[in-house]
Amino acid sequence: MKTLVIISHPEMMESGSQQYLLSSIPEGKDITIHHLESVYPDFKLDVEMEQALLKEHERIIFQFPFYWYSAPALLKKWQDEVLTDGFAYGKRGKALTGKEFGLVMSIGVKEEEYQPGGREGFSIDELTKPFQAMALKTGMVFLKTLPIFQFSYLTEEQKMNLLIRYQQYLTREKEDSLKAREKWFIQELKSTDTSKLNDGDQFVLNQAIEFIEENRDTIDELKIVLDQME
Amino acid sequence: MKTLVIISHPEMMESGSQQYLLSSIPEGKDITIHHLESVYPDFKLDVEMEQALLKEHERIIFQFPFYWYSAPALLKKWQDEVLTDGFAYGKRGKALTGKEFGLVMSIGVKEEEYQPGGREGFSIDELTKPFQAMALKTGMVFLKTLPIFQFSYLTEEQKMNLLIRYQQYLTREKEDSLKAREKWFIQELKSTDTSKLNDGDQFVLNQAIEFIEENRDTIDELKIVLDQME
Repeated sequence: MKTLVIISHPEMMESGSQQYLLSSIPEGKDITIHHLESVYPDFKLDVEMEQALLKEHERIIFQFPFYWYSAPALLKKWQDEVLTDGFAYGKRGKALTGKEFGLVMSIGVKEEEYQPGGREGFSIDELTKPFQAMALKTGMVFLKTLPIFQFSYLTEEQKMNLLIRYQQYLTREKEDSLKAREKWFIQELKSTDTSKLNDGDQFVLNQAIEFIEENRDTIDELKIVLDQME
Repeated sequence: MKTLVIISHPEMMESGSQQYLLSSIPEGKDITIHHLESVYPDFKLDVEMEQALLKEHERIIFQFPFYWYSAPALLKKWQDEVLTDGFAYGKRGKALTGKEFGLVMSIGVKEEEYQPGGREGFSIDELTKPFQAMALKTGMVFLKTLPIFQFSYLTEEQKMNLLIRYQQYLTREKEDSLKAREKWFIQELKSTDTSKLNDGDQFVLNQAIEFIEENRDTIDELKIVLDQME
């Protein structure tokens, strides 16, 4: 699966969260990072190039700071100019149908403020309806949003956690089951460069892989038995 | 009451609905029309000027075509750059508090499609939550939205109706009571140039004004009686 991360951020170099996320992009995976403000500082978009990019990828991510409950202006311009009738919607506009679409949003305010009575008054679910509607119109499958609340207040452990969730968001197949998560972890563990680990740690790692795989086998066997009993 | 109409439309000269609305703006009223794409063709905003404009008006209207369930990009840029911390929100950001805020949106799709099961899937209420949240954050009173569905399909009568609703939207005091509507109609009738009417029509007009005013007096008297009876 190829993933296109369309980033819109007017000051990306100064953004701690964006830099952190960028630095964690796994190499060698099918991930394209596309920062609009770098490519189009004058706000003049190359629509053909953008449409070609979209066609090449199966998962499309909008990654941006949540400005006034939406995306920065250049991403809005991108939507208005790239997602044309006949390409993204309308009778012959099927270019995006079946692709996956998700939002990675950095948010400066605490999560609990996004509800009635909170300072922001509305939930993230409510505020992202325009993007949900866009996915619907273009025939894309809307993924669960990955909101990043107050990145600068996160502990190191929370940041590590975020990093794993982010990497999974970009690369893990959609099926959000235990099986899909297991599969992702095994892949990651197996591709870990163990040459720098000491023998003890290498052993632990291999044991972990075996343990997860054995668990899966046991679960699968139990399911077969259950199916036969019905 | 002074009203600021901030229009964002990349192709306003070609827009039938925008031209129709513009042509109907009553003269001599305290209405400022401000078309962003005309003033800022290069997308470079004069933030100080924009903030000064906002301060001078009590009612702020965003008027735009509903592109991808939101405003065109330049209006988003305006939000991101003009509505700063310390001006529009935050501890000393009270410049907009108490003002009224409304949306006039031209929409290319039928009203009935904006619901679950419809082609657009979400209601206008849902899709405008980001603007409602903006009003909340800046302390502005959110007015009922004036959506204009499929302008080009409207009959002449529907267009006239729209015109009245639009003029009221820009100029009528908020109190959405019979009294407020009466007041607005009397004002409009009284300011009508009757010199071109024949005597019979002039008479009818004056009778209409008297009739509405008398009705109001009767209602007010009845209310006083009722209050005394309690």
